Amino acid sequence: MASLLQRIPMPKLVDELLQGSRRALARVLSLVENEVPEGHEILAALFPHTGKAWVIGVTGAPGTGKSSLVNALAKVYRQRGKKVGIIAVDPTSPFSGGAILGDRIRMTDLQGDSGVFIRSMATRGSLGGLSRTSRDAVRVMDAAGFEIIILETVGAGQSEVDVVRAADTTLVIEAPGLGDDVQAIKAGILEIADILVVNKSDKAGADQTVRGLRAMLELGHPAAREQFVAHHGRMMTVQAPSQVVGDVWLPPVLKVAATQHEGIEALADKIEEHRAHLAKSGTGESLEARYLEMEILERLQTAILERLRNTIPPTKLEETIRKIQSRELNPQSAVNVLLEEFS
Amino acid sequence: MASLLQRIPMPKLVDELLQGSRRALARVLSLVENEVPEGHEILAALFPHTGKAWVIGVTGAPGTGKSSLVNALAKVYRQRGKKVGIIAVDPTSPFSGGAILGDRIRMTDLQGDSGVFIRSMATRGSLGGLSRTSRDAVRVMDAAGFEIIILETVGAGQSEVDVVRAADTTLVIEAPGLGDDVQAIKAGILEIADILVVNKSDKAGADQTVRGLRAMLELGHPAAREQFVAHHGRMMTVQAPSQVVGDVWLPPVLKVAATQHEGIEALADKIEEHRAHLAKSGTGESLEARYLEMEILERLQTAILERLRNTIPPTKLEETIRKIQSRELNPQSAVNVLLEEFS
Repeated sequence: MASLLQRIPMPKLVDELLQGSRRALARVLSLVENEVPEGHEILAALFPHTGKAWVIGVTGAPGTGKSSLVNALAKVYRQRGKKVGIIAVDPTSPFSGGAILGDRIRMTDLQGDSGVFIRSMATRGSLGGLSRTSRDAVRVMDAAGFEIIILETVGAGQSEVDVVRAADTTLVIEAPGLGDDVQAIKAGILEIADILVVNKSDKAGADQTVRGLRAMLELGHPAAREQFVAHHGRMMTVQAPSQVVGDVWLPPVLKVAATQHEGIEALADKIEEHRAHLAKSGTGESLEARYLEMEILERLQTAILERLRNTIPPTKLEETIRKIQSRELNPQSAVNVLLEEFS
Repeated sequence: MASLLQRIPMPKLVDELLQGSRRALARVLSLVENEVPEGHEILAALFPHTGKAWVIGVTGAPGTGKSSLVNALAKVYRQRGKKVGIIAVDPTSPFSGGAILGDRIRMTDLQGDSGVFIRSMATRGSLGGLSRTSRDAVRVMDAAGFEIIILETVGAGQSEVDVVRAADTTLVIEAPGLGDDVQAIKAGILEIADILVVNKSDKAGADQTVRGLRAMLELGHPAAREQFVAHHGRMMTVQAPSQVVGDVWLPPVLKVAATQHEGIEALADKIEEHRAHLAKSGTGESLEARYLEMEILERLQTAILERLRNTIPPTKLEETIRKIQSRELNPQSAVNVLLEEFS
């Protein structure tokens, strides 16, 4: 590490960040987000200081009130004396500047607090880029001493599932009255939930949403399915708000009303319960290992592609594509030929 | 190709598919979707027979009535004597089995027609996998003689943008009254639209949605922005329903009511207009070349990662991850070490 850092005046920025400078943190986050080489060097220097934060992923369809919930949860953790970092990769989030002015004003009560740092990440650019930079941003905030990091994404696709891989505890937010179309989407993200939160519980239909989610959990969640079949020999209804069967955490369904600050303390408690469960069962460590393996393989892939792009002459690539367009060559054979010649 | 095909009784399946067997088509699509080696060989054999179909990507948020529109559009093309293939990668689509029974019944009028083939693709599995298999499914239907292929995805993330890369003409569907949250999402998918369709135009607020889209186009669409600034020296309102400035196609905004079959003929005409524009300007060919380049690079990446996975001993990878978890090593350095040793 030292050899890398001697070349450039990075140590100052790194030191300032480690000592809690918000200005240094903001600058490092920009370097990381833009994926410049200095960002990579700083990340390498910061990495030994990471691994202390608890990362809470918050995802859900638009209209579920994710941002109000993030706001309320951040306040609870502040009251508990924790420094809170917020990373918003949701284009509809007021944190990321995507929502209407009224929402943004509601959020300003967090912004005067030096124990809170809010950062929005652009959703432009490639998907891989976004999950990579949000993961790196988490590490930067972690090194900067933020004990709770909330990573907010809009839950409607594979991209969000990828982003949430950086989280230790993932909350999937639902709300009553969003309609069947939106409900149908959530089957996919249900599997990534550690805790299911029904927000806007003061609205009509909240109990119905809770029941619907419990039914979906029973049918849909792989842990629920496997564990219940294993233990009971058949499917049954998930009755209790939270259950741990063996080493498996079955996602509880919690009702909250974020704008009224109702149920948020209980939600924070449940997150801590999940954290304790992961530590006790060792699941957290093996999950981290699995995500790290995915990260390493992705990074390898990117590095190799970069090399290939520098090795294969552009004219060769153009010629290959022309041959595919004229149907002389098919894509798979073309790849085999390029691999033979250049690796 | 011949040498590959001699080993297995593939030629029969390929021949049957080329001669129009629905059974063969269904089987090949399954092989392709499951990404088995036979699927790759068949794709290679079919590739010379592709490139004739016109691929229409249909995307939009849940609740915009995409499936009804696909249904109506398929009927118009059938009336025009075209064979129509439908590939649904949308978990909320009745074609892919994601919607409620009522919707599914509505679609059955297409299913008795031998000139229509409907295939749903699972959204499980990796994102890369989905865009890869949907692209391959398009090629299979193309080789099987389907002249119009409609590729339906739910428009709410990078995954859909990737899937739509397989389309020649991309429709982005909107509908009145979906609320600001859903509206906010669409900024991202606006850029991929060749034609913007406001469905449910019989509902209140349709004209407002059209106006909103035109305003967003003016501000947001890169082609609109660049061309208008270049030609007029300043931003101006997009007034006409469709405009071609130089070689650039500015996405028109069309009103339809799919369930009433209103505006669907005009939509099909507009799609043909876009097709003629791409042919005349040569944009279609260069776009195809760009997508093929992305495909080749993705395939190279996958192939190389596969090789690496077979080269790096699992114990070595595990050891590396352990070192990262204990913060002895950072992810980037780990990748450099692995690259040094194994490539």
